[in-house]
Order: sequence, then structure tokens, then C-alpha cells
Amino acid sequence: MKRGSSKERARGRKRDAGLGRTSWVFSAYFAPSQSTGQEPEFTSRNTLCLLNTAFEEACVRLTVFHDDAEPVGPYEILVDPRRVRHQRINDLIEPEAVPLDAPFGLVVESDVPVVAQLYYFDSRGGALSASHLNPAPAD
Amino acid sequence: MKRGSSKERARGRKRDAGLGRTSWVFSAYFAPSQSTGQEPEFTSRNTLCLLNTAFEEACVRLTVFHDDAEPVGPYEILVDPRRVRHQRINDLIEPEAVPLDAPFGLVVESDVPVVAQLYYFDSRGGALSASHLNPAPAD
Amino acid sequence: MKRGSSKERARGRKRDAGLGRTSWVFSAYFAPSQSTGQEPEFTSRNTLCLLNTAFEEACVRLTVFHDDAEPVGPYEILVDPRRVRHQRINDLIEPEAVPLDAPFGLVVESDVPVVAQLYYFDSRGGALSASHLNPAPAD
Amino acid sequence: MKRGSSKERARGRKRDAGLGRTSWVFSAYFAPSQSTGQEPEFTSRNTLCLLNTAFEEACVRLTVFHDDAEPVGPYEILVDPRRVRHQRINDLIEPEAVPLDAPFGLVVESDVPVVAQLYYFDSRGGALSASHLNPAPAD
Repeated sequence: MKRGSSKERARGRKRDAGLGRTSWVFSAYFAPSQSTGQEPEFTSRNTLCLLNTAFEEACVRLTVFHDDAEPVGPYEILVDPRRVRHQRINDLIEPEAVPLDAPFGLVVESDVPVVAQLYYFDSRGGALSASHLNPAPAD
Repeated sequence: MKRGSSKERARGRKRDAGLGRTSWVFSAYFAPSQSTGQEPEFTSRNTLCLLNTAFEEACVRLTVFHDDAEPVGPYEILVDPRRVRHQRINDLIEPEAVPLDAPFGLVVESDVPVVAQLYYFDSRGGALSASHLNPAPAD
Repeated sequence: MKRGSSKERARGRKRDAGLGRTSWVFSAYFAPSQSTGQEPEFTSRNTLCLLNTAFEEACVRLTVFHDDAEPVGPYEILVDPRRVRHQRINDLIEPEAVPLDAPFGLVVESDVPVVAQLYYFDSRGGALSASHLNPAPAD
Repeated sequence: MKRGSSKERARGRKRDAGLGRTSWVFSAYFAPSQSTGQEPEFTSRNTLCLLNTAFEEACVRLTVFHDDAEPVGPYEILVDPRRVRHQRINDLIEPEAVPLDAPFGLVVESDVPVVAQLYYFDSRGGALSASHLNPAPAD
């Protein structure tokens, strides 16, 4: 088992500082309110998957766009250096909870480059469907 | 709860004017005619998800390409400033309804940059499958 | 109902000649041999979705890469001007049928720019799953 | 049946040397530990699909990012010249097995350009869901 020698980390520092981008956009967010099966594995959800390969913390700020109201934000998510963070959108409550069963769009901005992808999970009606979505780059 | 101070909106005006592109293309549209479960949540569909982060209205024009007939369009969709709009393709009836159970392609053109993504939902045969698709950029 | 006036077609000729690219690559093709439900709607498959927005025919040539044998090709697919074509990979038999239940990769080359996307449909085990995949650009 | 004449291979050598990129990033990896149905077709999994169109072997090195521990790697995967390889992440055991039911991110680096895509398969709860995901480019 090997979790990165100091030499590798030095190499990594150069190589991995800032993979990705500082700005990403999704238009197709939608989180169903219904679910079938055990909590929390089978709860319908939208998960924003953030990878920070840099050696410094990433402060990610989300702005949520609605179809019938002004955009809401920023939602702040911190991602530790050299870590991935899978953030359920349903768990974001500040400045306000993101409504279920409604269309929304999402602008993701970070102070250091990150990679953002969406994991969608839908367990309505006794079935199960997972899907993945890439954002459009915005910078 | 915070829906964007005037300072933030001013910042946003510069930052968010025109995230995305004015032209996008999909080749893999297909909307099943069969569905299982309650209307409208479980109706099989293709939803075009448009995000307009700009402070002006976006006029989006679609051209639908068929496999056995001339392209049809434009279909016009207005997206309010700073809003997302999830438009079911099945609901477009002008200049003519888009046929179900047939392959089609889609060219999306907008007067201001938008982000376009597809949400596909299939509830045939008592099951449920959701998928997402990004367009190819066309400009 | 409006299928494109001559003025629009003239505008389109300039605008739409060659949306997309002449070369695309997929690494994640896999077509299950098992299916549940009625043929052909519920047959498991990989469908290559090609959109030709140009006013001339596109000649698309596929090369199929295997995990245990030399690449096979070219498979030729013609796409009429201003048309979409959804081609089931399972239906390609020249120069040889593409094996089911095996991993393969796909290089798509066209003499005029096209948009290529994958529609994956899996109906094994009485369930139903659809997914979409974009290629990597190769030019 | 035609598996590439020497003339075609010569043409291919120029054309296909190095389609893709040497560096790719995914943030949305997650492999469920539960499965329903026959092994191995119906085992839940994440499969990294690598296509090497070049005429030389590709040495691909993966670094796995966790949400609560240092990144682990490199995992080495060799892809033969002119071949595709679909590698189940669950089967990687050196330097250590990648945990199931946990979020992770993945940096893919190769000495020759390759195309990388993810095939996700989820058979929990008696259902079946497949999804595909493209990486973000990192170079």
C-alpha cells in the first residue's frame, strides 16, 4: 500500500495543481421528491461531484437558477486539498433549500480549478435509474 | 434567505452575461410514445433544458432534422433573463408536432449565449430510465 | 406547417454547412446480446446517431477496435443531405458483424462534418435502461 | 472479412497515431457494492474504457482521489497497440483495492494519447441501470 511518497507529492504538486476549470454550468438539474427503497442509498437525488486535485483548499460557490424566481446563492462548498467531495444538492440549506420536483440550472464557480460532474439517481416507482452529466465549461 | 443584492447583481451582470454558446447540436433525440405510470411525471419524454444566465431575454430557435423528410423549423422558445427553462419537445406544436418513436436531430440557435442539455426520460414497459446528454458545440 | 422556404434554405446553406466534425472517437461501446420484451423496440442495442446538417451527402466510415484482435473496417454509412440517421451497430454486417457482449471502441470519420452521439439501450433481466454518450473529438 | 491491409495500416499509422489525450479527469466515480442477478454480467461496477488507436503500447497510470484520505496510486494499466481495454475499477488491487460504496475521483495519465470513457452499471434492488460518462480533459 502506497499513499504517495514525498517525491511523488512533489511531482504531483506541479502536475496536479489545478486540473479542471474555475467555472462550470449545468442547465439540466432536476431532483425528484419521490423515492423507493432504503434511505439513504436509494433516495432520489442530484449529487454534485467535485474533485480538487490542487494542494490548497477549494472554495466552490454555487448559484441556483430557477424557472420562476430570481437566482439564489451563493451556496458555499469547501473541498479539501487533494480530495473529492460528492455533495447532495438536497442537503444544501443555506441560503435556502433547493426545491424538489422543479427544474433548475446551476453555475459552479471555484477559486481554484476543480472538475465538476453530476450524478443523478432516481428511484421513483420501484425502479432505479442512475445517470451522469458533464457541465458546459464557462471560462 | 438571499436572492441577490444589487451589488451582487452588478457583479453578476459582468460575470454571467452570456455563459454558454449561441449554437448547439444534438443528433440523438428520440422520444418514445409509450409510458407507464402517472401523467405527467412518468410520461416518456425528451426535455430540452435551457439556462439563460444573461440579464436579457433569450430567443432560442430550434430546427428539427428527420431521417426521411426535410428539416422543420424554426420552433421558437423564449427564456426569461436569469432563468432556466425545461421545455418538453413533445409540447412543441408550431410549426408542427415533433413525431414520437422516430429518430431526430436538433440544432439549437440563440440570440444570446445559453447552456443547452437534454434530459431523457423513458418509462416504457413498467420500468424507468433517465439519461442526460450534452450537445456538440456548433460555433 | 412549414418545411423551410427557399430563403431559409439559402440562409441555412451558409449557416448549417458542416456543423460538427469529421472525426470522432468512442471507447465505451458494448452491446448486450440479451433482451427482454418486444422486438425491435426493446432489443438491447448501441445506436450510432449521425446528423448531417450539410447540403451534400456524408460518407461516414467506421473502424471498430477490439480487445483481442486487429481493428476491423471500414464500415460505410451514407447520411443524406440535411438528414439524421440512427444506425444500429448490430445491423452492420460488412466487412463483418460486430460481436455482442464484447468491449469495443469506435473511430468515426466523415468526408463532411457531422455530429455523432451514442444511444445505448439495455433491456436485460426484465428491466430497461437507456443512456447517451458523446464521443471525444479527434481533430 | 478484412482486418486492415498493409496499405491501410500505413495510412492508419499516420491518421490514428495518438487519437485522444494523455490526461483525463473524472470526479463522479462511485461503485455500489450490491448487485442483483448473475455474476459477472450483472455485477454493479464502474468500468474504465480505454481506446489506444496508436501503433505502440499505452501505459496508463491512474490516481484515485478519496473524500477522507490521501490519493492512492499509481495503478498501472497497459493497453496493447490498436486495441480497446475495458477495465473494471473493482478489479484493480495494486497498490490497494478501490473501496466500494464510497465517492472517488480519478486522474488518468497515459504516455501515448488515449480515449477514456466510463461505463457505469448498477444492478441494486433487482433493477438495472447503465450510464456513460465522459471525463474532463486535463491537458
